[in-house]
Amino acid sequence: MTRSERGRIRVAVSTVILTMRRDRGATPRVALPLVRRTRDPFRGDWALPGGWLDEQESLEEAAARTLAETTGLAPSYLEQLYAFGAVRRSPSRVVSVVYWALLRADEVDAQSAAFEASGTAPDNVAWNDAESLPTLAFDHNRIVEYALWRLRNKAGYSRVAQGFLPPAFTLADLREAYETILGRRLDPANFRRQVEAAGNLIPTDEFRTGSHRPARLYRHNTDVALADRGPLSPEETRTP
Amino acid sequence: MTRSERGRIRVAVSTVILTMRRDRGATPRVALPLVRRTRDPFRGDWALPGGWLDEQESLEEAAARTLAETTGLAPSYLEQLYAFGAVRRSPSRVVSVVYWALLRADEVDAQSAAFEASGTAPDNVAWNDAESLPTLAFDHNRIVEYALWRLRNKAGYSRVAQGFLPPAFTLADLREAYETILGRRLDPANFRRQVEAAGNLIPTDEFRTGSHRPARLYRHNTDVALADRGPLSPEETRTP
Repeated sequence: MTRSERGRIRVAVSTVILTMRRDRGATPRVALPLVRRTRDPFRGDWALPGGWLDEQESLEEAAARTLAETTGLAPSYLEQLYAFGAVRRSPSRVVSVVYWALLRADEVDAQSAAFEASGTAPDNVAWNDAESLPTLAFDHNRIVEYALWRLRNKAGYSRVAQGFLPPAFTLADLREAYETILGRRLDPANFRRQVEAAGNLIPTDEFRTGSHRPARLYRHNTDVALADRGPLSPEETRTP
Repeated sequence: MTRSERGRIRVAVSTVILTMRRDRGATPRVALPLVRRTRDPFRGDWALPGGWLDEQESLEEAAARTLAETTGLAPSYLEQLYAFGAVRRSPSRVVSVVYWALLRADEVDAQSAAFEASGTAPDNVAWNDAESLPTLAFDHNRIVEYALWRLRNKAGYSRVAQGFLPPAFTLADLREAYETILGRRLDPANFRRQVEAAGNLIPTDEFRTGSHRPARLYRHNTDVALADRGPLSPEETRTP
């Protein structure tokens, strides 16, 4: 290998898009879209949405493009998860930079329906429970595990759970999102005390009414950043 | 470009090594090693230690190798900071995966002295105050800014500050590390109350004696993880 070729490695991007799915009456679950591969290696196996980084696009642009091409999904923001670069993670040497985002189920449904209606949607995409995945191509099982670990971890110190919620929500909605992320039940009274003490919620004057007693709606205090947005700057944002 | 060449982008690694430097009597400061470039582009400018990713090494191995080759430093653990991939961050297209670590000043001194004694140390490395850097090559000023932001941010919810401290330390040592990271003074009584309430410190039976009244030494509770160690696994760890 000549000196000028050093560092010439194939670079790919993938995305982990997490949503909270609720089947009628069942406990909500974290779900993500997968794409069945139509080419070698791992032809026929499920994989994360993704593709090659092109010369004239940033990493985040490549992640957004390949996600939109396969799933029609367009999260308002993709956060960089990790760069995976083990030597043998693919038959040829590939570094994959992985992005992730949380989407509400109603956003997923609206974007998916619009994509179907466009006539350009491929038929090899399916949503899967994050906790019961098949064996995925490459190291994608490990990547999903890491995304779920980061999600549970961030739930402890950031407002990441609100990525699953509409702008106004009840404390029960918020607790359910945390329970889904953490995979365990939380005591309602303790949960209420903790979120009220944290001071990240702003009570509204609105209530949700229905079969139960009216529940106050809350909004998140947007003075606190939702997520680590990375070293954003004019250079890192999308080029026109 | 043929299909088989898609994604062929040059991949580099860089490292941000942070230490806490104390000049006699002065306020301690965060410092990092820089390397003066001997080749184009940016010949003669200062840059982070780093180099090209080779075909047969993982990202972390490349970061550790290039750091050791230039500075002789060998942190016990390098954490991935971020993958920088803006299209115009370098004259040719380069994706840089950046790692970071905290080193104690005495570790830096011992490793640097051993490297000097080996006779292989290059003469183009210097330590700089993180808060008063010259204009660095590429987007390296932005990378350092991001590393410092992450350090300050992590100080709020993790034990990152202990990366600057020996295994046993006084509360004044710990407060000084936090003050250096955050760039502001902290009230000693409030600080003591907060760290005691957090329960991450284990008091020892040892005291530091000297010109002041004896101060109890503490250790960190190692049941809590020091840092996000990434998706570590047999595949991601170094190959033999």
